[in-house]
Amino acid sequence: MRPTPRPELFPAHTPAAPQIFTIVLSHGPLTRAEIARRACLSPAAVTKAVRPLIEAGYLVEDVDEESRTALGRPANPLRVDGGRALFIGLKVTGDEIIAVLSDLCCRIRVARHVPLGDREPKAVLAEMTGLVHELLTEAEGFGVQVRGVGVAVSGDVDRAAGMVRYSPFLEWREIPLAELVAMTTGLPVTVDNDVRALTVAEQWFGAGVGLSDFALVTVGAGIGCGLVVGGRVVSGAHGVAGEIGHLSLDPAGPQCHCGNRGCVEAIAADSAIVRDVRTATGTPVADAAEALELAHRGDPGAREVYARAGEAIGRAIGSVVNLLGPERVIISGEGLAAYDLFAEQIRDAFAASAFGTAGRCDVRTRPLPFEEWARGAAATAIQSFIRSDTHKE
Amino acid sequence: MRPTPRPELFPAHTPAAPQIFTIVLSHGPLTRAEIARRACLSPAAVTKAVRPLIEAGYLVEDVDEESRTALGRPANPLRVDGGRALFIGLKVTGDEIIAVLSDLCCRIRVARHVPLGDREPKAVLAEMTGLVHELLTEAEGFGVQVRGVGVAVSGDVDRAAGMVRYSPFLEWREIPLAELVAMTTGLPVTVDNDVRALTVAEQWFGAGVGLSDFALVTVGAGIGCGLVVGGRVVSGAHGVAGEIGHLSLDPAGPQCHCGNRGCVEAIAADSAIVRDVRTATGTPVADAAEALELAHRGDPGAREVYARAGEAIGRAIGSVVNLLGPERVIISGEGLAAYDLFAEQIRDAFAASAFGTAGRCDVRTRPLPFEEWARGAAATAIQSFIRSDTHKE
Repeated sequence: MRPTPRPELFPAHTPAAPQIFTIVLSHGPLTRAEIARRACLSPAAVTKAVRPLIEAGYLVEDVDEESRTALGRPANPLRVDGGRALFIGLKVTGDEIIAVLSDLCCRIRVARHVPLGDREPKAVLAEMTGLVHELLTEAEGFGVQVRGVGVAVSGDVDRAAGMVRYSPFLEWREIPLAELVAMTTGLPVTVDNDVRALTVAEQWFGAGVGLSDFALVTVGAGIGCGLVVGGRVVSGAHGVAGEIGHLSLDPAGPQCHCGNRGCVEAIAADSAIVRDVRTATGTPVADAAEALELAHRGDPGAREVYARAGEAIGRAIGSVVNLLGPERVIISGEGLAAYDLFAEQIRDAFAASAFGTAGRCDVRTRPLPFEEWARGAAATAIQSFIRSDTHKE
Repeated sequence: MRPTPRPELFPAHTPAAPQIFTIVLSHGPLTRAEIARRACLSPAAVTKAVRPLIEAGYLVEDVDEESRTALGRPANPLRVDGGRALFIGLKVTGDEIIAVLSDLCCRIRVARHVPLGDREPKAVLAEMTGLVHELLTEAEGFGVQVRGVGVAVSGDVDRAAGMVRYSPFLEWREIPLAELVAMTTGLPVTVDNDVRALTVAEQWFGAGVGLSDFALVTVGAGIGCGLVVGGRVVSGAHGVAGEIGHLSLDPAGPQCHCGNRGCVEAIAADSAIVRDVRTATGTPVADAAEALELAHRGDPGAREVYARAGEAIGRAIGSVVNLLGPERVIISGEGLAAYDLFAEQIRDAFAASAFGTAGRCDVRTRPLPFEEWARGAAATAIQSFIRSDTHKE
């Protein structure tokens, strides 16, 4: 392999630097005193940790003339310079690849979609590589280096090993995706489960900012869940976690592809809804869009199917809340297009199943289009860059 | 209030000291180098943190002449001196109070039981105070001071506030128990939910040692669950967490006292089993012991009730594992007396509902008699002492 120049590393000279930088990234601008309070560190430790970050241009100090006058001594807030580095995020679905070029603050600068014909790893890798090179060309226009690539794939993904263990939609098993993408792009690569990647983006830049315990539930082709407990994204001892789609809610319920009965996914995922709408209405709807259209036109059988799906989702959220007591549950995913058809059932079933004060949990929806999933992949690349734990070529 | 002498505090002069002490408590004896590796700290930081702990007698250094000879310089392992401090743990059930005097390593030195006649807070407080004074007299015999009291109560308990928010078995609401016990005993008091307290004991001294993610499921009068995620006991944003008993498994299942249908507790708790054994057999069994006896004598109706209970418990464990992917699930509680009647169903239902690699989770049983629950309460007192966050008079 051709040697490539060693990529610039994040200047984390003290163990506290990644933590401090993340705090400013999510909550900034903040003064050093505010950072110290949030990080439970001494102001001296913060001053020491931020100096190299300022020198390298990752943090900038806003000189605030007013605070200088009022306090005699400046308490200048620090913020992240989003333009200091760029990242590429890729979300691979069964049908397409969505790619974004994001800055260090996870703001999308450029987005691209390509349809996926062939799901073989080799073909998908070629498409991914092409997209990365397109975005690298775009990045040149900004005059800023791309520091890493994040790839989000549904299924059982081992981030530490950079392996896709099993992805049902892609029919992939044991693909060393991080290594492959690093080889074809020469960039550090992070591969993660797509829902966990989206959860990282929500935790750092979205509806999870400032919360130590929250859940992100995604509804659509699958029913997924990202969990943040004690400020950390749960990944499971054996790679499986957040499998809300396979909570078993009804021993008499429909058969699930996992082999079990009455799973949430067997009741409320797109394919289950299409199946049940066909049965209930006799109309041979081709896909989730047609099923939704039928329900939106007022067909009572189709509406009943969505109502049942909402009840299953609400009960599943109740299970998550009874076990973990999060502050907030964020419902998202492409299935939100049907939200008017099952919102009430989700709310009612959640309220009925939540135990005691767990019912105080703030359950809310948040539309996150597929570009946001690619942004989630970029967020994992930013996270790896800050922690310097990506897979390098 | 009469002023009491200020209790001796744990000598945690650096923020790392409680963490280091806990590592030695759970994993010791350990050398300073081993502690540094486990704590992700520099050997210098460990040396600095342990010095005051050795000087105050909480840690002792075993002089190992062999390692001195072999390495030229001693790598003496450090261990906790269990006899350096004593703690009292109280577990309050609906029927009795169990009290233990434990040492700093959570070894039980003395145990006491008293039956509970009156469940009014005032009467229970008087019994608790009497037990504490008895154990304080015992402690004098050891010539060691008691440093704190832990109280474990089932239900919704707010440890930080020292409040029992709601305990169904005791029919208590909003009782400031930590403050009350601190007033009558003059000791620092920690009040926690009983399953969480037992989970702390398992994490530090039991089957959870060395695991960052595990669950403790307790079966008996209620079905409870303590969760450790990322090395921390989950307590929930609103005080509710681990409510495995109120996972809703069957929309056509029996009515639960929580208002919902088909909860695990409505199928597998003692009262549900008694109800269902009566219905299935026509025998008016008085309590769980009689129901168990009937099943152990081979009554097919009674055996079927236990089989259904086992299936519900297994499916509930499957839900926990699918969401959190723990390394281990420990099943315990007084309901283990029926384990031969439902072990197979628990195992089968868990295996059927676990998704993918989550099924690799190690599910095991561990008998923990009620004294162990009181020991759990003592463990919370030890934890509070080390972290210096107990409620003082």
